[in-house]
Amino acid sequence: MRGYSQEKDDYLKRLRRIEGQVRGLQRMIENDEYCIDVLTQISAATKALQAVSLGLVDEHLRHCVAQAIAEGGEVADAKVREASDAIARLVRS
Amino acid sequence: MRGYSQEKDDYLKRLRRIEGQVRGLQRMIENDEYCIDVLTQISAATKALQAVSLGLVDEHLRHCVAQAIAEGGEVADAKVREASDAIARLVRS
Amino acid sequence: MRGYSQEKDDYLKRLRRIEGQVRGLQRMIENDEYCIDVLTQISAATKALQAVSLGLVDEHLRHCVAQAIAEGGEVADAKVREASDAIARLVRS
Amino acid sequence: MRGYSQEKDDYLKRLRRIEGQVRGLQRMIENDEYCIDVLTQISAATKALQAVSLGLVDEHLRHCVAQAIAEGGEVADAKVREASDAIARLVRS
Repeated sequence: MRGYSQEKDDYLKRLRRIEGQVRGLQRMIENDEYCIDVLTQISAATKALQAVSLGLVDEHLRHCVAQAIAEGGEVADAKVREASDAIARLVRS
Repeated sequence: MRGYSQEKDDYLKRLRRIEGQVRGLQRMIENDEYCIDVLTQISAATKALQAVSLGLVDEHLRHCVAQAIAEGGEVADAKVREASDAIARLVRS
Repeated sequence: MRGYSQEKDDYLKRLRRIEGQVRGLQRMIENDEYCIDVLTQISAATKALQAVSLGLVDEHLRHCVAQAIAEGGEVADAKVREASDAIARLVRS
Repeated sequence: MRGYSQEKDDYLKRLRRIEGQVRGLQRMIENDEYCIDVLTQISAATKALQAVSLGLVDEHLRHCVAQAIAEGGEVADAKVREASDAIARLVRS
């Protein structure tokens, strides 16, 4: 069981849609479509991936981190550090 | 012909790899892998998409915008505005 | 008392340094310095602000959110939602 | 003369406002204001810096890069590469 388990189907649906967007990008390049239009589509795919990340962070805080905090001690500390590091990677990517 | 035409194969190869990363993300979710590991993989895919965007912007400046500037006048002005808008979307996504 | 109270002096020092960077940017513009050099300095100031944000998010999770989770119930839920919203704003800015 | 010279006063005004925002952040920390409120204000300052960057990139393309392209040759090539590198730093910061 993971924090996101309850919404697994929703995440899979979103990721399949993003996969479709990335295939669409390949078709655009194959058809020599206009650079700016390709860029607009990449921004859409990036935003969609970002939204998936933000959803996972929320679930992770709500479940895994919350549980670790409830248990307390070093485990809690390590879980918060791990979450903060993931958030930092997300902000910087 | 587009700014990126000469490197079309390279872009297609990178986008196919990103498509593979997004399918890998679906497998991770299906297998209930750990949220933080999923997040790390999403960051990798996002960075790869961003690198494609930055490559396209460079080609676009180098070819389409350069040509419009060489022609001058309103066309040049409109092309720079369009490029700046695309860069702004990229920075904000 | 806030999550960041213990490191208040450190945050103030970093913000004063950022203030100095922003004043430096004004001098660069006044002296007509080269656009690219101004951009490099803005990136430095932005990264420094981002690092302050990431530090505050970590403290916030570690203290305010942890305490709310320990209390449980609706308060915990609301605190996590609030933190997730702040993280989303950070990722998108 | 720089690409941004015509709008120098506007940029200075915006940077002075950002300096004020950063001083406001110091007051918030001194007064132990709520972490989430501090984060919201940092996002505002970051967005304002980003907007200054995007303005400078636009001016830079419109003036410095355009002029280099009009001159052509290696100078043009180097200017576009330099602009692309600055855009990449901006996207990644």
